Amino acid sequence: MNESAPIGIFDSGLGGLTVCAAIESSLPGENLIYLGDTARVPYGVKSPDTVTRYSEEICDFLIAKGVKAIVVACNTASALALPRLKGRYSIPLLGVLEPGVEAALISHRGGKVGVIGTEATIRSESYPRALMQADPEIQVLSQACPLFVPLVEEGWIDHPVTREVAEIYLGPWREASLDAIILACTHYPLLKEVLRQSLSPDVVWVDSALETARVLGEVLKKENLLNRGDQAGSRQYFTTDAPQKMQSLAQAFLGHALGEVRVVQLN
Amino acid sequence: MNESAPIGIFDSGLGGLTVCAAIESSLPGENLIYLGDTARVPYGVKSPDTVTRYSEEICDFLIAKGVKAIVVACNTASALALPRLKGRYSIPLLGVLEPGVEAALISHRGGKVGVIGTEATIRSESYPRALMQADPEIQVLSQACPLFVPLVEEGWIDHPVTREVAEIYLGPWREASLDAIILACTHYPLLKEVLRQSLSPDVVWVDSALETARVLGEVLKKENLLNRGDQAGSRQYFTTDAPQKMQSLAQAFLGHALGEVRVVQLN
Repeated sequence: MNESAPIGIFDSGLGGLTVCAAIESSLPGENLIYLGDTARVPYGVKSPDTVTRYSEEICDFLIAKGVKAIVVACNTASALALPRLKGRYSIPLLGVLEPGVEAALISHRGGKVGVIGTEATIRSESYPRALMQADPEIQVLSQACPLFVPLVEEGWIDHPVTREVAEIYLGPWREASLDAIILACTHYPLLKEVLRQSLSPDVVWVDSALETARVLGEVLKKENLLNRGDQAGSRQYFTTDAPQKMQSLAQAFLGHALGEVRVVQLN
Repeated sequence: MNESAPIGIFDSGLGGLTVCAAIESSLPGENLIYLGDTARVPYGVKSPDTVTRYSEEICDFLIAKGVKAIVVACNTASALALPRLKGRYSIPLLGVLEPGVEAALISHRGGKVGVIGTEATIRSESYPRALMQADPEIQVLSQACPLFVPLVEEGWIDHPVTREVAEIYLGPWREASLDAIILACTHYPLLKEVLRQSLSPDVVWVDSALETARVLGEVLKKENLLNRGDQAGSRQYFTTDAPQKMQSLAQAFLGHALGEVRVVQLN
């Protein structure tokens, strides 16, 4: 595989752009192809079979584009589909789950670890399972926060309603002596500042986007796939529907405007 | 067409069950087949082409089940796909848009008419267009309320956060001398009581589910398709994903539990 081949990154929607942003920042020379499956967003309420089928269709598309590695920048797909995807493709495949778990374990000082995510991610129990596999003594609290994604997409980031919803979801954890909380949804890093207000300042907030970019760098290095050119990498953005929505939310998620966004039909 | 043939009803998800409930109540002898496209919910953020393609796949499925009429119990699909569906099938096809518009025109006494719905329904401007076609002098106010569906699905119906969100969306209409507001999303009838608190008690709230059931009765009568048997009609429920979610939300939307829910794959 050519080291200048692009890295494929996908999400059910636009949240994965936070992972894109982290990769752009830590691996600026890499060529990136992002696909947001906005025609079928959200994955968070769908079954494992459906999420796996959608993920396979996307990986087939990215493989056909010649990618050297794929980042599953979607917590639901990482939790539900990654094992089957890893069996199907020979290039490195990386989800957002393991890097987040790894970072939480580093912050763990004997207290509890919290996990917040979509309904499907939480119901799948993938995070508690991965955490307890590494440390059978660890205590994990989980909370589904289904309103956070629509609140972010409505643009209500630093907003009284969002603070109230955060208080309802996270307030009960105030007395729980938490060491770390994993933001197990790619939309949630945008709410980091608001969420911090609900809990003790000592809690470490694990941003899976940043951790995934870090682990991706390690994997590429190990596999001799790092792009060593000194030019800034190219960017290609695909969506399965409504490119203008990706354009309009890009600033918040990615920190900059997008160029062209192309629509692709997968089924 | 046999008068005992079933009526097909579909929605992007579970909201259309409010239309089902209204039809069950006003036409108790009819046999009903409901399909909720939960694998691809929500339609409200998707493009007209995608929503039309999904709607055609569902109508093909319902036609194959031998339905005598189809109710598009989804505001987004009614607004974006109905004209093309009507050109494609020969049985009566009824959306939720026209019955709601008709009822709003009856309540109209020279003031303004408000329309609330998903982003896509509001952006399509289908309601203002239909209202102004009937009465070119009518003044229409529109407001997208993207957080209402996730709030209903979270079960936060009579909830302080929902009241605050309603206040943000509808408060600015308090001084607008509205005659009627069309609930242009099948989830919204569940919020009727909460929404009433945000505006003057004189405003007529047009519940498209009830109006659609009424118009369906008229259409079936005119076409000699009313089921004149005196037995209670049969029910069949289909979903494209996650049948347990349909089961668990049925009580709120439909007022009773469901029997078997079957999963069907459409693409």
